[in-house]
Amino acid sequence: MEFHISAPDRTLAAALQQRIDQKTKPAGALGRLEALALQIGLVQQTVAPHLHHPHLLVCAGDHGAARAGVSAFPQEVTWQMVENFLAGGAAINVFCRQLALGLSVVDCGVNHDFGRRTGLIDAKVAHGTANYLEAPAMSAAQRDEALKRGRELAHALAGNGCNVVGFGEMGIGNTASASLLTHCLTGADLATVIGRGTGLDDAGLARKRVLLGEALARGGRRSDPRAALDEYGGFEIAVMAGAMLGAAERRMVLLIDGFIVTAALLVAHAIEPAILPYCVFAHRSREPGHAAQLAHLGVEPLMDLDLRLGEGTGAALAFPLVQAAVNFLAEMASFESAGVSDKSA
Amino acid sequence: MEFHISAPDRTLAAALQQRIDQKTKPAGALGRLEALALQIGLVQQTVAPHLHHPHLLVCAGDHGAARAGVSAFPQEVTWQMVENFLAGGAAINVFCRQLALGLSVVDCGVNHDFGRRTGLIDAKVAHGTANYLEAPAMSAAQRDEALKRGRELAHALAGNGCNVVGFGEMGIGNTASASLLTHCLTGADLATVIGRGTGLDDAGLARKRVLLGEALARGGRRSDPRAALDEYGGFEIAVMAGAMLGAAERRMVLLIDGFIVTAALLVAHAIEPAILPYCVFAHRSREPGHAAQLAHLGVEPLMDLDLRLGEGTGAALAFPLVQAAVNFLAEMASFESAGVSDKSA
Repeated sequence: MEFHISAPDRTLAAALQQRIDQKTKPAGALGRLEALALQIGLVQQTVAPHLHHPHLLVCAGDHGAARAGVSAFPQEVTWQMVENFLAGGAAINVFCRQLALGLSVVDCGVNHDFGRRTGLIDAKVAHGTANYLEAPAMSAAQRDEALKRGRELAHALAGNGCNVVGFGEMGIGNTASASLLTHCLTGADLATVIGRGTGLDDAGLARKRVLLGEALARGGRRSDPRAALDEYGGFEIAVMAGAMLGAAERRMVLLIDGFIVTAALLVAHAIEPAILPYCVFAHRSREPGHAAQLAHLGVEPLMDLDLRLGEGTGAALAFPLVQAAVNFLAEMASFESAGVSDKSA
Repeated sequence: MEFHISAPDRTLAAALQQRIDQKTKPAGALGRLEALALQIGLVQQTVAPHLHHPHLLVCAGDHGAARAGVSAFPQEVTWQMVENFLAGGAAINVFCRQLALGLSVVDCGVNHDFGRRTGLIDAKVAHGTANYLEAPAMSAAQRDEALKRGRELAHALAGNGCNVVGFGEMGIGNTASASLLTHCLTGADLATVIGRGTGLDDAGLARKRVLLGEALARGGRRSDPRAALDEYGGFEIAVMAGAMLGAAERRMVLLIDGFIVTAALLVAHAIEPAILPYCVFAHRSREPGHAAQLAHLGVEPLMDLDLRLGEGTGAALAFPLVQAAVNFLAEMASFESAGVSDKSA
C-alpha cells in the first residue's frame, strides 16, 4: 500500500515570518512558539491558521513477547487499561477533558474481546502479535491491514473537520517492541535504546536486554520499515504508523508523544520522509531510546517533564502550546495597529 | 514592613504520595507533574487540592536608567504596551484569554498619566525611578510603599477567592535593573547576568555592560534585599516582590515567570526564605542571568521554550501543567477502583 504525501510548499514562509515579526514583541521573543506558528501556517498554507476539532487517538494492542517477561506488568493490564480509558479514569482522560480534546480509543489487537462499546473503535487485526522470540510478530497481510485501518481512522477524522491529531498508545510490552524498531530504523545500539518501560528493576532490565538480544539474533536487523514491523512490531504501532501517514496525506498537524509513538513515526518516516514537517514533537520521554529517535529525526521536543506514561499524555499536555502559537499569530496586535514604537536601533 | 510566612507543614506528604502512587500509572510515570501535585497539596494542606480563580498580575514601571541607553526600545514603549494590554492586543492577553486566566495590569510607576481606566490598577509610586547611574533608584519610603501596595494586591486577590497567581511585568530597561539585583542577591559576576534584553545588538550589549558597571561602581553591591531595591530596583519589581510575599502569606500558589519576575522573587526570598515552597517556576528564559537566579534558588523550571518576552507569558503558558497536576490527583482512578492489576514484581 502506498501513501501520497508532499512536504508543505514553503513559498508562504516569508509572509508568515513577516506577520510574526510585526507582532508587538521583540523579534523572536516568543521563541519556539514562533517556529510553531510558522510550521502550522505552512502545513495549512495560510497566514491565518486555525485548529479545528483537536483529537487524540489512543491505540491499544498486545504483544506476544509480553508473556516472555519483557514488562513489569502482566499482559492483562492492556485490556484493563482500555476499560479504564472507556470509564474515563486514566490520565489521558483527565487531560483530554481539561484541554477539550476529543478522544478515541482504538483496539488494534488487544488479546481480549470487548464486544461493541461506546467510545471504542474496533480495528482489531488479531488477538495480539506473535512472540518475536519465536517467529515474526505479524504477517505482511496483517501489517498491511493495520496500516490501512490506521489510514482510514485519520481520513475519517479529517472528514469530520479535525485538522490536528495527537497519538497515544497502550500495550504491555510495547517499549520492548519500540526498542527493536528503533534499533532497526536508526541503527543505534540495541542496548542503548532499551529502558525500564513501566518500571523494571535492575534484574528485569537485564532480562529484557537478554531477551531482545535473542529476538534480534532470530529476526535480524531489518532496516526496511515494513519488514521491521513484520518482525518486531505491534498492531498498535502499525495502526499508528498508518494513521500518521493518513493524517499527513490530509495535511493535518500531528502531535507526536513519547518513545512508542515516535517508534511508529520512525516507521512512517521511513515509508514517506515528507511526513516530518507535519509533526510537532510534544515532549522528551524519560525512556532512553527516545533520544536516539529524536536525534535520528533531527528534532527537539517542546517539553521535558520526565514523563514516561504513554497514552498520549505528553501529546495532550503540549496541545495548549500549539494552540498558543496559532492564537498569537491570529490575535496579537502589530506595532502599527497598537501604536507601539518599534526598536530604536 | 514585615511579612509573616511559614513553610507548608509536610506532615501530609506521605498521604499525598500514597494517593499519587495508587493512581493507574506506573510509579513516577507522570514525572514532574507528580512533584507538582505533591507541592500544591502541601501548599493547600489537603490531599484534594483545587485551583480557584487563577489570575495574572502584570506590573509595569519605568526606569530612569532607560534614558541612558540600556535598552533597544525607547521608554515610551512602556506606556504604549500598557495601552496594548488594556486593548487586549498583547501576547499575555491572548494567552490569558486562551487559558481562562484573569488578568490585571498594574501601574506601579510608569512615566505616563493614564487617568482612570478599566482593567488598570493604579499603584503608581512615582513617574519612574531615578537613574541609578546618578543616584539610588528609589527612596526607602518609596520602596516600602511599593512593597505594601504589592501585598495589598495579593491580599485582595485572595479575598476574591483566588488561590493561584502568576506574575508578569513590563518596563523598558528592567532587564538591566534585574541584572543588578541578581548580581547583588546571588553574588554571580555582573557580566554573566547581563543579556540582550529586548534585543540589543553586540554594540548595545557592550554599552549596557559598561553602564551597569558604572552603576555598580556608584552604588556598590548591596546584599540586603531592601537596600538592593533602593539602589537599583524598579517600582514594578518592588510591587511584585511585595505581592509575592503577600500571596505566600495567604498560602497561594505563585507562578514565577522569567528573568525579571525571578529578580523580584530573589528580593522576596531574601526577605523571607519560606516563600520558596509556594513557588512554581514556569520556564527557563533565554536571558542569561536567569540561570544564575535558578541555581541560587536551587530550582528547575517546568518548560524551556526560548521565551524572552516577559509580560508573564511563560507563567501563563505553564498554567495548564499546574492544572493538570491538580486534575490527575483529583480525577484519576486508582488501581483498585479501576480493577487494574498492579506491577507483577
